Amino acid sequence: MDCSWCNLDSFSDYFIYDSEYFSVYLSEDQSLLGRLILVLNRHASSLSDLTHEEIHDFLSNVKIIEKTLTKAFGTTMFNWSCLMNNSFKKQPSFPHVHWHCRPRYAHDVSFTGLVFSDPDFAHHYNNKRKLFVSPEVRQSIISAIRDNLSSV
Amino acid sequence: MDCSWCNLDSFSDYFIYDSEYFSVYLSEDQSLLGRLILVLNRHASSLSDLTHEEIHDFLSNVKIIEKTLTKAFGTTMFNWSCLMNNSFKKQPSFPHVHWHCRPRYAHDVSFTGLVFSDPDFAHHYNNKRKLFVSPEVRQSIISAIRDNLSSV
Repeated sequence: MDCSWCNLDSFSDYFIYDSEYFSVYLSEDQSLLGRLILVLNRHASSLSDLTHEEIHDFLSNVKIIEKTLTKAFGTTMFNWSCLMNNSFKKQPSFPHVHWHCRPRYAHDVSFTGLVFSDPDFAHHYNNKRKLFVSPEVRQSIISAIRDNLSSV
Repeated sequence: MDCSWCNLDSFSDYFIYDSEYFSVYLSEDQSLLGRLILVLNRHASSLSDLTHEEIHDFLSNVKIIEKTLTKAFGTTMFNWSCLMNNSFKKQPSFPHVHWHCRPRYAHDVSFTGLVFSDPDFAHHYNNKRKLFVSPEVRQSIISAIRDNLSSV
């Protein structure tokens, strides 16, 4: 079956970096500055299917990402989730393991002339609040992350 | 500082089982039948602070829990998250790593005379939908999980 997560070529503008088992992309939604998605490089349909090498690599990425975003944007804390609900909108379902990283902020952040805020800080994220930025702002966010990646 | 997650004695009625690094409790909210919380047995304030032994143990628990709940209740798929937002309602914040497991259902489940439904299946869970069950129903859910745990 055709899995969109196995074919992310059209998202190359969102690509940040990859590790042995995951590829890291900026999310289209930047309502929480630096929101990312970690996509498993092979097709696996549930968290249970991960190998210990893969979860080890996931933790290494968590450590890198939390340090990098905190350095780049002063992130206060992080929400991590593996949900995959959208894959079940069609039958047969065809989920592909990916993680959402939502950086959370106790303060506003000015970046590229925009002010990014987190009005729901210390509460569950508001899944309906979205912010789609221009390709230029997106590229600036990716560059800021990459610049700080190299030094963590 | 006093950490409520380090002192879960008052939640002994919700305890299901423990592994080397995590203790597993039934959530007070059973709007998604079998909703669980995995609490790290030591105090650590972010996912980045986990050791590789701890994340390995987390994955082992994911495998056990997904298999057990599917067997006990016919769960369709699972949402996993590490959020810790509530800990930031007070300053200084004092987060303690814990994971939420939200079982999701494509169908209603009849159990202990109640019908458990998941009207938001294939969509993000509705964090405002709650179901608090009686101590008797809670104990029946825990027993059903424990009975199936031993055979996975």
